[in-house]
Amino acid sequence: MANSDFSNQESSNHEVHLQAALGSAPLAGHINRLLKKPEIVRARRFAQMLDGFHLKNTLTEQVDGRKAVIDGRSVVNFGSANYLGFERHPAVLEAARHALSEWGNHSGCSRIFSSHENIVRLEREIARLVGADESLICANTSQVHQGTIPALFGAAGVTIYLDRYAHTSMHQASLIAVAKGARLQRVDIRDLAAVENQFRDDSAQVKVVMIDGVYSMQGHVPEIRELQKICDRTGTILYIDDAHGIAVYGERGGGVVEMLDLSFENMILTAGLQKGLGAYGGFVAARKPVIDFLRVSSRSYIFSGTLQPQAVEGSLAAIAVCDSDEGRNLRARLKTMSKKVRQGLRELGFVVPAGDSPIVSVAMGAELKTLLAGRKLFDEGVYVNSVLYPATPKGEGLLRISLNAIHTDEEIALLMTAFSALKSYLDGYRSPLGPNFSYLKEFAGRQLRRGRRSSSEWVKKLGL
Amino acid sequence: MANSDFSNQESSNHEVHLQAALGSAPLAGHINRLLKKPEIVRARRFAQMLDGFHLKNTLTEQVDGRKAVIDGRSVVNFGSANYLGFERHPAVLEAARHALSEWGNHSGCSRIFSSHENIVRLEREIARLVGADESLICANTSQVHQGTIPALFGAAGVTIYLDRYAHTSMHQASLIAVAKGARLQRVDIRDLAAVENQFRDDSAQVKVVMIDGVYSMQGHVPEIRELQKICDRTGTILYIDDAHGIAVYGERGGGVVEMLDLSFENMILTAGLQKGLGAYGGFVAARKPVIDFLRVSSRSYIFSGTLQPQAVEGSLAAIAVCDSDEGRNLRARLKTMSKKVRQGLRELGFVVPAGDSPIVSVAMGAELKTLLAGRKLFDEGVYVNSVLYPATPKGEGLLRISLNAIHTDEEIALLMTAFSALKSYLDGYRSPLGPNFSYLKEFAGRQLRRGRRSSSEWVKKLGL
Repeated sequence: MANSDFSNQESSNHEVHLQAALGSAPLAGHINRLLKKPEIVRARRFAQMLDGFHLKNTLTEQVDGRKAVIDGRSVVNFGSANYLGFERHPAVLEAARHALSEWGNHSGCSRIFSSHENIVRLEREIARLVGADESLICANTSQVHQGTIPALFGAAGVTIYLDRYAHTSMHQASLIAVAKGARLQRVDIRDLAAVENQFRDDSAQVKVVMIDGVYSMQGHVPEIRELQKICDRTGTILYIDDAHGIAVYGERGGGVVEMLDLSFENMILTAGLQKGLGAYGGFVAARKPVIDFLRVSSRSYIFSGTLQPQAVEGSLAAIAVCDSDEGRNLRARLKTMSKKVRQGLRELGFVVPAGDSPIVSVAMGAELKTLLAGRKLFDEGVYVNSVLYPATPKGEGLLRISLNAIHTDEEIALLMTAFSALKSYLDGYRSPLGPNFSYLKEFAGRQLRRGRRSSSEWVKKLGL
Repeated sequence: MANSDFSNQESSNHEVHLQAALGSAPLAGHINRLLKKPEIVRARRFAQMLDGFHLKNTLTEQVDGRKAVIDGRSVVNFGSANYLGFERHPAVLEAARHALSEWGNHSGCSRIFSSHENIVRLEREIARLVGADESLICANTSQVHQGTIPALFGAAGVTIYLDRYAHTSMHQASLIAVAKGARLQRVDIRDLAAVENQFRDDSAQVKVVMIDGVYSMQGHVPEIRELQKICDRTGTILYIDDAHGIAVYGERGGGVVEMLDLSFENMILTAGLQKGLGAYGGFVAARKPVIDFLRVSSRSYIFSGTLQPQAVEGSLAAIAVCDSDEGRNLRARLKTMSKKVRQGLRELGFVVPAGDSPIVSVAMGAELKTLLAGRKLFDEGVYVNSVLYPATPKGEGLLRISLNAIHTDEEIALLMTAFSALKSYLDGYRSPLGPNFSYLKEFAGRQLRRGRRSSSEWVKKLGL
């Protein structure tokens, strides 16, 4: 069964080289069939061509503030979702250390049996932060969806409307609801008029629309206020995943719900503690009867172990800083930084959406172009995420810059210098003999050394 | 919409009192319909009757080794799944503290972009511990299932056989696979002959059977060796969740797979780091091509944030202790303890399965009886889990004693004394005027004070 085409490859420890399974076991046969699926064949060839070059599955060897050693190279990290830098805040670290001494490394059992008092305190603090009656914590936002969505919406007579750009974890959890009888429908909430008609024409007993508070890849806040009005007019429940808005938006840092002053009357809010708050965990916040119902019906809550005490107390400390003058100053700095970077990138000629979120998303398009661009920035000393399908729709590859309030002015200046170099580099492609042909030559060499098709065929095929 | 029957209740902070939602929003209407489902109505009345009495959703206020203050009462905790006591081991705590200093409180982004080098190290150590080629970490075992099962088995032409006692998280993840076309079938692997026939008669292209390595509630190890032979004979893949076996079984602490010397040829192993290892996280371990495939297809891996550095380094330290003479001594102590407790409980007349797992499960049966028994033990200074449907099949309520290697001889002696008192107490029910009628009188008083039906009606209804 071994496919010699993919064997004997050198590989670093963290890179993925999909190799055929050996032996005659049913599992080996199954894996080898999966490897023949067209998208997997394509991914295998792509990874092979870019072996050692692209920035997927890199290794972070050292961290010092926002300087990091990634794959052996010292760069400034613009790939961290810890937007306010709380994961290195002295008060957060001190609280985590205190929790280790006081409670040990783990709390030992499911919430359905017992909760450490600090978990209950954290749930109250989260509710206060976002302005809900109550909240409930799970391991992360995905687990929150997997507990909440099937419990509330896993039944016949329910239509789940999932926004085109909504995080995939809501899609996965909705599939559990589908297996229990719900209907799942994709929508694009950027076209609010169409959405309103669709909701109105749907006679399902229960309708719910699921969206991101801040698009995790594109970085902007959708028209939630208007959508909430449409929900109220059409009898549809609003379900928001604000993983990237918490700590970043709102006076207290309560996220888009606080910033837009949204009512919890007909809304369920979910989010995480591990991005803006720099800690760990996910939560759902809502009116008391909703949370009470989830306490007896969310399988993530009932059947999973609890957070570590240091995650809990770290989160409590992070919320305290978040809702303080220090937090407000950090948010203000982040906003100013975001506007400045967007402006600068636009002046360089890049396509960047308007907004003030710390996620600054630079449209690239084709996969290979996106990866080349990410690599170029890396070689210039700046790490950003190179984002491809399935994290974005096909052909909508982008560079995601995650700004953090603790990035220094010098680091921001370096970012702009790197993008300026990228601009020249990409412009070079317009002339096939231009000075920036170097990466393609590198690929061509790799392919020739392996006796495969030339890289130019691939470049064509991959739509650069 | 408010239901006055359930309003104006006093409630402690952590107990669940399901109250009707107020207002006219679609969400309120939906919650109120859900509250009318028969099983919810029953749960509401049950919780109300036992308000302040039963041991669900208790609050742990203080922890000192295995002594804990739960709901204001100092008891010995037999409800912790940290079987070897590693969550308080100095080396584990020191490693967690070191990680906080070195890496901060969070690692910042999805694994698909970058991994801290200690995560890669931990994945190698896990693979070594269980004897697999490679492993892959997620937030917890549930997340591992939700990544692994749909990626490998979410397609038409697949039959997923789920053992009757398999952990519910595999069921939830299988529902995602069902939504993608797989067929899901319940089996009972205690009847191996029937299972073999069923597997043989199934002409599906891919067949997989999912089981627990150690039944999480009943506490024994199923006949996995024989099942693996059946899998090999019938072309069925074996998928094991060994959440409760890791660290507890095997010479290194590699779990049931090491203990039974099972081959990874046709097997996928999943488990957690947060029970026996006293840390945090879940993993899947398998042959290299399986793990490689999951790195490009498990949505839990690709789309969720990574573990906190202190969880990672705590796990590394725990594995080192686990695979040392200290670990072997702790496992030996645990085994001796388990056999002695089982023997003692049987001598008292309780129904306890044979085995040597730290989960000692005492059959109770009816729900109310199970809760009364758990409460009686609590009043005697011993906390155990009172386990009901849906964690066990209906009518199979049980007391779950979780033995930990760090329980002292005095604490084990107290456990036996408490069960002896429980035995007398339960025997008292045979005479309706016996000396142990106190709890029922308490319920009757509560019901009368509320002007509701007498507790004797409930006792009858609930099958004591």
